[in-house]
Amino acid sequence: MIGRLVIFGVGLIGGSLALALREANYVREVIGCSRNTVHLQKAVDLGVIDAYVTDPQEAVKDADVVLLAVPMGAMKPLLEQIRPALPTQAILTDAGSTKGSVVAEVNEVFGHDFTRFVPGHPIAGREKSGVEAAVADLYHKRRVILTPQTYTDRKALTQIAQMWQVTGALVEEMPVKLHDEVLAATSHLPHVLAFSLVDTLLNSPQREDILRYAAGGFRDFTRIASSDPIMWRDICLHNGAAILPMIEALKQNLTEFADFIHRQDGEALRQRMEKAKTARDNYIARFESGANS
Amino acid sequence: MIGRLVIFGVGLIGGSLALALREANYVREVIGCSRNTVHLQKAVDLGVIDAYVTDPQEAVKDADVVLLAVPMGAMKPLLEQIRPALPTQAILTDAGSTKGSVVAEVNEVFGHDFTRFVPGHPIAGREKSGVEAAVADLYHKRRVILTPQTYTDRKALTQIAQMWQVTGALVEEMPVKLHDEVLAATSHLPHVLAFSLVDTLLNSPQREDILRYAAGGFRDFTRIASSDPIMWRDICLHNGAAILPMIEALKQNLTEFADFIHRQDGEALRQRMEKAKTARDNYIARFESGANS
Repeated sequence: MIGRLVIFGVGLIGGSLALALREANYVREVIGCSRNTVHLQKAVDLGVIDAYVTDPQEAVKDADVVLLAVPMGAMKPLLEQIRPALPTQAILTDAGSTKGSVVAEVNEVFGHDFTRFVPGHPIAGREKSGVEAAVADLYHKRRVILTPQTYTDRKALTQIAQMWQVTGALVEEMPVKLHDEVLAATSHLPHVLAFSLVDTLLNSPQREDILRYAAGGFRDFTRIASSDPIMWRDICLHNGAAILPMIEALKQNLTEFADFIHRQDGEALRQRMEKAKTARDNYIARFESGANS
Repeated sequence: MIGRLVIFGVGLIGGSLALALREANYVREVIGCSRNTVHLQKAVDLGVIDAYVTDPQEAVKDADVVLLAVPMGAMKPLLEQIRPALPTQAILTDAGSTKGSVVAEVNEVFGHDFTRFVPGHPIAGREKSGVEAAVADLYHKRRVILTPQTYTDRKALTQIAQMWQVTGALVEEMPVKLHDEVLAATSHLPHVLAFSLVDTLLNSPQREDILRYAAGGFRDFTRIASSDPIMWRDICLHNGAAILPMIEALKQNLTEFADFIHRQDGEALRQRMEKAKTARDNYIARFESGANS
């Protein structure tokens, strides 16, 4: 049970957590904080939060758990603002998509002996964003990855793990570096690729015809190019160490495909495609059987 | 109205055309031809074709329209087989995904004065393939692109255009080169990319964790990596001239994204992503309003 939960950034992610915890009566009071009072008032009206505060220092006063659910680029200034006011017993956690950067930022702002920060990443989302899209079951059977450090307080870790379990999430621990590499591969690289593919097509002399004739495959393939540019800019800037080698590996792999096509090596092409298809089909079979959901 | 329609390759594409034409009473008789009698018998059982023949020369005898709906790599040997037996008045057409290669192959086999070949490409598909997946409304409101040459017989062209219109398709004409470039951009490149992305991830030391944690975005993004490797090998081999420059342009664009990340140039990243998102959102809005469906 949590007393006062303070959420910075009451959008899809923070709002859905609030709804799930309130539905389960696992939290006494949820306070939202951001600069946008229109969004915050909407969150109150929708029953997502009990009240809001616009001053970060005032917001964290009397907090038991503080969740940072803001874009990666907003983390550090926020940490600097709340540091003087954070109560001694309060647990700090986040929902950011990259973990190495936020761990480093907390270390810089709070010092290396700060034990009550539990880095977290709920792997869930919807097409829509914002507090209007928040739903109580967003995290049901979805993975939430926590990346504690060796010095992270065990009780704080347990409390954050329990908080996510209450939402129906499957909570796991993972080293920071592995998290950032796995997410770079499965999420960050595909997003960069979708943006880059659409941009490449826009630069083509046939751009009008291309958009006009784009078929269904293009539509699915580029869906994630409709994602929020601010969020993805921040993720790229904060996980470059893991994303850049993946971009390099993909470019190398594309060069190999191009070589096969150039040399008209049908057998090499077929083998590569077959291998990818098999792996992808197996992944989907596992996903649909629930083992990976 | 077509008398005898002969379809080589009675799968999703050929089968759906047969169903639509039969439903509209636009064809007297549909004959299927391939090497696989199990599939052909299934096509008869499903009411897709009236009868089948396994010998290509026998199949085209008395044909009014001959549709080649086989993988690009199977076109030329098939053209060579049917050439001696094709009736003087029969119209030859195809449903291949690349047009330059098939036009060149028909020229090689039938000579440059062959006027009764109408190159075509129905832009439609489903997740499933094979004759079991064939449906009469597959082409409803979908584009069918015809790429006639200057010497193509106008009456033959009109007859093939009408055949596709009967299925509910939106028939358009386009130069061969533009077709191959537009399809390279919107379909062939995304497929190569999906195969290459999955292959890149499989080569990662974290491949097990990557597949285990792959989130929804990955699932959509790589859907087309589950496509048929034979079909896509053939498309790559037959449209290399258009695909290779697109791969090169994409690699260059990815290099620019990587440079922005490396230089931590958030504003350049945001602008690129914003531009892609806006174009993609506009495309989808047009698509959903029906203008592009």
